[in-house]
Amino acid sequence: MQSTWTKTGAGSVAGAAASFALMLLAGPTAAVAAPPAACATPSTAPQHYQIPANAETVHWGYFSKNRKPVLAVHSGDIVTIETLTHHANDDAERMIKGDPGAESVFGWTKDKKNVDRRGAGPMDASVYGRGAGEGFGVHILTGPIYVCGAEPGDILEVRILDARPRPSGNPKYKGKSFGSNAAAWWGYHYKDLIEDPKPREVITIYEVETDGETDWAQAVYSFRWVPQTDPFGVVHEIIDYPGVPVDHSIIKEKHGILNGIRIPLRPHFGTLGLAPDEQDIVDSIPPSNFGGNIDDWRIGKGGTMYYPVAVEGALLSAGDSHAAQGDSELAGTAIEMSLTGVFQLVLRKKKDQAGTILEGLDFPLLETNTEWVVHGFSFANYLAELGDKAQQEIYSKSSIDLAMRDAFRKMRRFLMTTRGLSEDEAISLMSVAVDFGVTQVVDGNWGVHATIKKAIFPSPQ
Amino acid sequence: MQSTWTKTGAGSVAGAAASFALMLLAGPTAAVAAPPAACATPSTAPQHYQIPANAETVHWGYFSKNRKPVLAVHSGDIVTIETLTHHANDDAERMIKGDPGAESVFGWTKDKKNVDRRGAGPMDASVYGRGAGEGFGVHILTGPIYVCGAEPGDILEVRILDARPRPSGNPKYKGKSFGSNAAAWWGYHYKDLIEDPKPREVITIYEVETDGETDWAQAVYSFRWVPQTDPFGVVHEIIDYPGVPVDHSIIKEKHGILNGIRIPLRPHFGTLGLAPDEQDIVDSIPPSNFGGNIDDWRIGKGGTMYYPVAVEGALLSAGDSHAAQGDSELAGTAIEMSLTGVFQLVLRKKKDQAGTILEGLDFPLLETNTEWVVHGFSFANYLAELGDKAQQEIYSKSSIDLAMRDAFRKMRRFLMTTRGLSEDEAISLMSVAVDFGVTQVVDGNWGVHATIKKAIFPSPQ
Repeated sequence: MQSTWTKTGAGSVAGAAASFALMLLAGPTAAVAAPPAACATPSTAPQHYQIPANAETVHWGYFSKNRKPVLAVHSGDIVTIETLTHHANDDAERMIKGDPGAESVFGWTKDKKNVDRRGAGPMDASVYGRGAGEGFGVHILTGPIYVCGAEPGDILEVRILDARPRPSGNPKYKGKSFGSNAAAWWGYHYKDLIEDPKPREVITIYEVETDGETDWAQAVYSFRWVPQTDPFGVVHEIIDYPGVPVDHSIIKEKHGILNGIRIPLRPHFGTLGLAPDEQDIVDSIPPSNFGGNIDDWRIGKGGTMYYPVAVEGALLSAGDSHAAQGDSELAGTAIEMSLTGVFQLVLRKKKDQAGTILEGLDFPLLETNTEWVVHGFSFANYLAELGDKAQQEIYSKSSIDLAMRDAFRKMRRFLMTTRGLSEDEAISLMSVAVDFGVTQVVDGNWGVHATIKKAIFPSPQ
Repeated sequence: MQSTWTKTGAGSVAGAAASFALMLLAGPTAAVAAPPAACATPSTAPQHYQIPANAETVHWGYFSKNRKPVLAVHSGDIVTIETLTHHANDDAERMIKGDPGAESVFGWTKDKKNVDRRGAGPMDASVYGRGAGEGFGVHILTGPIYVCGAEPGDILEVRILDARPRPSGNPKYKGKSFGSNAAAWWGYHYKDLIEDPKPREVITIYEVETDGETDWAQAVYSFRWVPQTDPFGVVHEIIDYPGVPVDHSIIKEKHGILNGIRIPLRPHFGTLGLAPDEQDIVDSIPPSNFGGNIDDWRIGKGGTMYYPVAVEGALLSAGDSHAAQGDSELAGTAIEMSLTGVFQLVLRKKKDQAGTILEGLDFPLLETNTEWVVHGFSFANYLAELGDKAQQEIYSKSSIDLAMRDAFRKMRRFLMTTRGLSEDEAISLMSVAVDFGVTQVVDGNWGVHATIKKAIFPSPQ
C-alpha cells in the first residue's frame, strides 16, 4: 500500500506500512479473537488489517451497539475496508456478477437471503411487509470494528488514507466501475416534478474508468422504476427496500443520456460512524452526533473524521460509498458506487483532549488538508432529543433552517473552545470567513455544514 | 487601466481601454446629457467612463426606476464605479476623513445632511423617527446607469473587470483600506447569544494593506455599540439608521482581538442590480429577481452577472462593497469596505437570447471563469408575490427552506433550458454535481445559491 499521508505529529503511514500485517478474515469469528480478548495482546507496531465485504462482515441498514465486531484493532492500526453500495442490484450485471463479495452480500433466492435483516424495523416485516428490517435504513455497512480501549467520552480519529472504486467483477466490463443514482421517492424533487409521468423514480447508471487516469464519471443509461418482484415474492411498487434485484427484462434502458457530460469524481463514504448508545438497532439513514450517514463528499481521501465515542470499543462501520455527490444530494442519492477505503484509526482519550481541537467535541468533525468542517443537523442528537419515537419522528421534523441553527452553534463552540476566541470574535469571524452549505436534504435528519480554512489561523494544529 | 479580461467572443478590455474616454461627473446633471439624449450619439468604439462617489452620484438605501441616471452608456462601454460602504462612519477617522467623496456623501451637520433620504421609508420619518427614509434599506448605491436601448425582456450582462479596495484618505493610514463588520440586531446570531450582555451589537474594524501583495484582512479592534446621537439629535439605541457617526469618545475600543488571524480577501459587490418595475422606491435590503443585495462573495473580479431588465434603460446601481464574506453572512454584514469596480456593460437583446445561457432567464445568474451560479431566494420575486405590503412582509416570511426550493427550481430550469437536458437528466446531474450553499440569512429575502462547474459540459458556452 502506498500512501501520501504526512500529517504532522501523527505516526506516518510510511512507517506504519513498513510493518503492516495483512489479516484477511474468512468469516465473522475467524482470524480475529473476540474483543476484548484480542485487545489483551499488546500493540508493538501498527498493524494493517483488511476487511473484505461479504455476508458475514456487513450489517445492512442499521447501527447496533450489540453487533458483534468483525475486527479488533489497537489505536494506530490501519484497516482496509471494502464497502459495497446497496444500489448494486440496480444493475447486477455490472455491479455484482463475478464479484464474490457482492454475490455473497446480495445473494437472495426464493429460499434464502444471505443478509436477511435490512433496516432497523421488525424482522417479520409486520409494518409494511417489505421484508426483514422493513428497509428502515438502507446502507450496507462493513464492520463494526472494535477499537481497544475506547470508552464513552473518548474521540475516535479516522484518517481516510485512500478511497478507490471497486472494479466490476464481470470480465465484460474490465477496467470499469459502476454506480447508480436513484432519483427516488425520498428525494427533494419528488413532489415537485414538471414533466410527466408524475411522480416517477429514475435510476441512472454511471461508469468510472479504473485506469487511474480519468477523474470523472459518465452516465451510461437510465431507466424508470417499474414494480419489481423480489425473490420472496414481494412486489416493490417503489424503491422501498434495499437490494431488490432489478429485472432488466421489464425495464426500459434509455441510452445516450447526459451526453458528453463528465461528473468530477469525489470518492467518499456517505456513511461512516460509530454505534450510538441511546437505542440498540438504529436506522442507518439519519446522521447524528455519532456520525453515520452524513453524506458530505469531503469525507474522502485525505480527510480525517473525529467522532465522539458512545460505547465501549467505539464500533466503527463504513459504507454507503459514493463516487460523486453534490452538496444537498438533491434527488436522494449520490453516484452510489462500491469503494475500498484505507483507514487509520487513532484513539484520542478524553484526558488528552484538553487544548486540542477535540476539546468538548460532541459532534462529528471533519479535518481536511485545508479546512475544518463542522456538521450541523436539524437535530444534533435526534435519538436523545426526540425520545422513544425518534426513529419515526425524525422524518417529519427536519428542516434546513434547524440544521443551519445547529451548524452555527457548533462552529461558534468550535472557535471559542479550540481557538480561545470570545463569542464576539467567533461571530465576526463566522460572518466574514465561514461558509455554510447544504449537506443533504434527503436523510431524515437534514444537514448544514460550516467550513473554515485552516490557513486563517497563525498556527494550524 | 490594466485588465486580464479575456472572455472569448467579447470585445477585449485591452482593446476597449485603448480607446477609452474618461468622463468625470461634476454633478448629477453635468457632463452627461440626460438619456435618452446621450443615446442618440452613435457608439463608434467602447468608451470608458468613471463615476466618482459623491452626494450627487449616489442614492442611499433604495432602488428606484424614477431615479435620474448619472450616466448613459452604450452596450460594450466600460464604467469605473466608486462605491462607498454605508458603514464608513463606524470609524470616520479611517474611512471618511481626507476622502472628498466619502466626506461628501456622509456630510451631516445639525443643519444639513448631504444625502437626506436613507431608505425607502417616508421622508418625514413618521414610522419610527429614525430619519428620512427610516433606514428601510441601508446601502449606498452609486448610479443608476442608463443603458441605451435596454428594454424589459432584455438581459444586462455586467462583467466585473476589477474590484479594488479604496485607500484611506487619511494620511495617517496611508497604504491601508478599512472596513467594518457589524454583528447587528438583524444578524442570525442576535437572539442566540451565550455570553453577556445579551443582546448586544458589536462592530469590528478590519484593515487591508493596499500594496497589492497581501491577500488578507486583519482585525484592528472592536467595540460594542452604545447609543449614538446623530447630528439632528436623534438617539440611535441600536444600529437602526445607516451612516450615523459613531462618537469614539463614548465607545470603548478593544484592541488585540482575533490575534494573528488572516481573513482571505473576497472583494465583491454585495449589492449590484437593476431598478425593479413593481414599485417606485424599493428597499435595498431584500434581493430579488432584479438582483440587488444578493451578497454572494463570488460576485467579484472575473465574474459576470446577468440581470433581467425590468425598465427602460435597465438602470444599474452598485454598492454595498465587501472585502470578504462567508456564505450566510451570519452576523448581518460582511467586512463592509469601499471598493472601486470596473464594469463592462453588455446589452443582450431579447431576440438574441434563444439558444444561449440567457434563454428564459428571469433571475440573476452569475458566471465565473469556472462556474455558473443560480441565485434562489425565499421569494423569487417578492415584490410581485407578496403584493402591496411586500416590503414589510418579506422580513417575516423568509426561510432557508424556501430559498432552497427556489434554487432547485432555478437550476433545473437552467439545465433544461440552456443545456437541453430532460428533467430526469437535470435532476440526476443536480444530485451528483451541483452544490447548494447558504448565501445569506440576514437580508429579508434569504438566499440559497446553486453552483455547477462549466467543465462538466463538453463545450462551455
